[in-house]
Amino acid sequence: MQRTSLATLTASEAAQKMRGGLVTSEELVQDCLERIRATEPIVHAWQFLDEEHAIRQARAADERHRSGVAVGALNGIPVGIKDIIDTGDMPTENGTVLHKGRMPPADAAVVAKLRAAGAVIMGKTVTTECAYFNPGKTRNPHNPEHTPGGSSSGSAAAVAAQMVPLALGSQTAGSVIRPGAFCGDYAFKPTHGLIPRNGVLTLSRTLDHIGIFARSLDDLALVAEELVGYDDNDPDTRPRAHMPFCEVLDEEPPLAPMFAFIKTPHWDRVDADAKEAYAELIEALGDRVEEVDLLLSAGDAWDIQRTIMEAEMASNLAPLWDAGKDKLSERLRGLMERGRETRAFDYQRALKSVPPMIAGFEELFTERYDAILTPPALGTAPKGLGATGDPVFCVLWTLLGMPAVTLPLMRGANGLPLGVQMVGRRNFDARLLRTARWLEKKLA
Amino acid sequence: MQRTSLATLTASEAAQKMRGGLVTSEELVQDCLERIRATEPIVHAWQFLDEEHAIRQARAADERHRSGVAVGALNGIPVGIKDIIDTGDMPTENGTVLHKGRMPPADAAVVAKLRAAGAVIMGKTVTTECAYFNPGKTRNPHNPEHTPGGSSSGSAAAVAAQMVPLALGSQTAGSVIRPGAFCGDYAFKPTHGLIPRNGVLTLSRTLDHIGIFARSLDDLALVAEELVGYDDNDPDTRPRAHMPFCEVLDEEPPLAPMFAFIKTPHWDRVDADAKEAYAELIEALGDRVEEVDLLLSAGDAWDIQRTIMEAEMASNLAPLWDAGKDKLSERLRGLMERGRETRAFDYQRALKSVPPMIAGFEELFTERYDAILTPPALGTAPKGLGATGDPVFCVLWTLLGMPAVTLPLMRGANGLPLGVQMVGRRNFDARLLRTARWLEKKLA
Repeated sequence: MQRTSLATLTASEAAQKMRGGLVTSEELVQDCLERIRATEPIVHAWQFLDEEHAIRQARAADERHRSGVAVGALNGIPVGIKDIIDTGDMPTENGTVLHKGRMPPADAAVVAKLRAAGAVIMGKTVTTECAYFNPGKTRNPHNPEHTPGGSSSGSAAAVAAQMVPLALGSQTAGSVIRPGAFCGDYAFKPTHGLIPRNGVLTLSRTLDHIGIFARSLDDLALVAEELVGYDDNDPDTRPRAHMPFCEVLDEEPPLAPMFAFIKTPHWDRVDADAKEAYAELIEALGDRVEEVDLLLSAGDAWDIQRTIMEAEMASNLAPLWDAGKDKLSERLRGLMERGRETRAFDYQRALKSVPPMIAGFEELFTERYDAILTPPALGTAPKGLGATGDPVFCVLWTLLGMPAVTLPLMRGANGLPLGVQMVGRRNFDARLLRTARWLEKKLA
Repeated sequence: MQRTSLATLTASEAAQKMRGGLVTSEELVQDCLERIRATEPIVHAWQFLDEEHAIRQARAADERHRSGVAVGALNGIPVGIKDIIDTGDMPTENGTVLHKGRMPPADAAVVAKLRAAGAVIMGKTVTTECAYFNPGKTRNPHNPEHTPGGSSSGSAAAVAAQMVPLALGSQTAGSVIRPGAFCGDYAFKPTHGLIPRNGVLTLSRTLDHIGIFARSLDDLALVAEELVGYDDNDPDTRPRAHMPFCEVLDEEPPLAPMFAFIKTPHWDRVDADAKEAYAELIEALGDRVEEVDLLLSAGDAWDIQRTIMEAEMASNLAPLWDAGKDKLSERLRGLMERGRETRAFDYQRALKSVPPMIAGFEELFTERYDAILTPPALGTAPKGLGATGDPVFCVLWTLLGMPAVTLPLMRGANGLPLGVQMVGRRNFDARLLRTARWLEKKLA
């Protein structure tokens, strides 16, 4: 009988086995590489992968373990890194030919944090062009004729295909939660400003978030605990007390959580089978869920997010425009053309409309609800590879910087994964994961 | 022989006498009020003043002193407050008829800090219209046919006229240093982000600074030490260690300071008598000063400041525009019209050009110089009350958020005060005042 590949383990399981001396990082990484060799020709999740370099990192992790020094929580665990996140030892091409072969000067803050925790930086995962909508080569591991979603396409697919237990992505509209849901991952986008973004391609300071892909809530907590923190070079981070994600996740909620189910003004566009699945979910939750109307003021959120994204991306990606705008996709060029014409007056008005909306949702949480339940997308991953699906069910929570997680708890009529998105109160991220675990158990 | 009015004392002198039990706050405030009665009909420094309310505050301060409780460093000292800074107990009209009789909901952060330090909030001083260029009624105490400068016209004039020893103002282009110099005050605009601005009319988050008017360096340090601090409601403040302004000011610099004299591209416009005066100053400093060319990249600073100011003021003052733009001056309306048409692309480019300029000046300080010497204005206060003078010699330092102080060390050919502006390294504000004291002694 063939032994089970270590690539099927979650990061938490693998870390535990390594601590117990039952497996080594090298064995784990070898199994992951084997899995990659087998599935990459179909999935195309990787933009850069140097097997030898990964194995050397694994051996170093094993050596740290054997030497008896205290090792980090991710010692020897392989992590895929979206190719807009700088790595000092691997190219970072940002999904554009204009950055072909680009070697960053240093690790992004999050990569440095992963390395400090002992992780093996496995390689770079495919991103859409500049983390916007033009797809890369990645396919959905559940059905290669379907999109994996984007822009963190390779990260979402690599975790789902069991090529790595963990991967990092980023979200400016819906680029973590949507591909996470399409690929059947656990995916988590913490509160804006919790995870430092220096060394990551900036699309929009206002909207950019780092996100995590994994195959369990434990793993999301494990990584989040390492990545959250103040960094002088990300002006949106703040010094704050350590967030004990893993500890909080293991607690029982003091009371059964109360959920607000929010359909948003875009519910009509949700697929019929998904609507049915959510109806069943609501029924299963009984008196623990109530349908809540979106605050009226939040109805403009989609326009506001677009105004901010267009204006800030046009500015932040101007060096690419100058270097060769004819090398950009029409999609991206169109966005930048619109962004270059946006008035500062409208842009600032958009920025100013955000805090009152945040305050409105704060009330929701302080008054009655532990989390918002809402779809992560219009349904399962759409067929076709020419687009990455619609981020419409992520945009509001990205704009407001609220923590969001998607759990692969259901399936669509086509058998593809259907996620459940939960959105929490800003800066109560660990509690959101705890509530998510309650939901997961409840529906198990 | 008539006794000398207590209104002639600096705040530090008055505070010392009060601590020694030689005078009371009520006596001090009465003398200030007497001085106001005598000079206000010419100077017109005050927008709101309630004598009884001031006296009641003074009595409360005296009562605190007598009771033996620990009192703040400004206990019983009267302070004038520019009328764009909210006071919960007095109207704040922002220099526009559209806010006539406006009662703010609470004290601005700086007013709360002054009260916590025991200060008597004397009244509200005249501001230009919305702290922009359209003059109020104030005249220069040294010659009422000349402008006091603006926009902190009343604060600058009230301190110069010995109506109060201290006053607060604000600077978005040159609204503290310029009127301070025109009126012969000591005036100080600390590093951007050191003094919280919540509760102050926002013109431009990027450019707005709180500033202090006084009649000595000791007094500037005394007030700065109370006002600098983190505030959750001003996103540009940061938690940081206490800045011991008074202690540092009393130290001898370890080495005689080295000054960089910077003429800027606008030197040609400086008045002939002022040019002569600065030439004498340079000569007096001998080998402690060198003329330094402005970094090339800083040559655009004036355009950049205008782009930011126009765009942000158009956005921040939009409620006034909507409420009645025909009630705004043509000057302000023109600014807002331009600001409403500014492209977000140009606005963001302007914002992004600031950090590299700051870095350029950092080098100047780390390599060789303790402070920059430069004029605070084109010369003495111009004749006429229809304009408040040109902020051209303040704009660069406001844009870069560098600390600036003006000292009334010289006189123009017309006998009016001529200031010396010194600009320091960001966040080394106390050291700038210490260097200023060295200069003051050197030239005494």
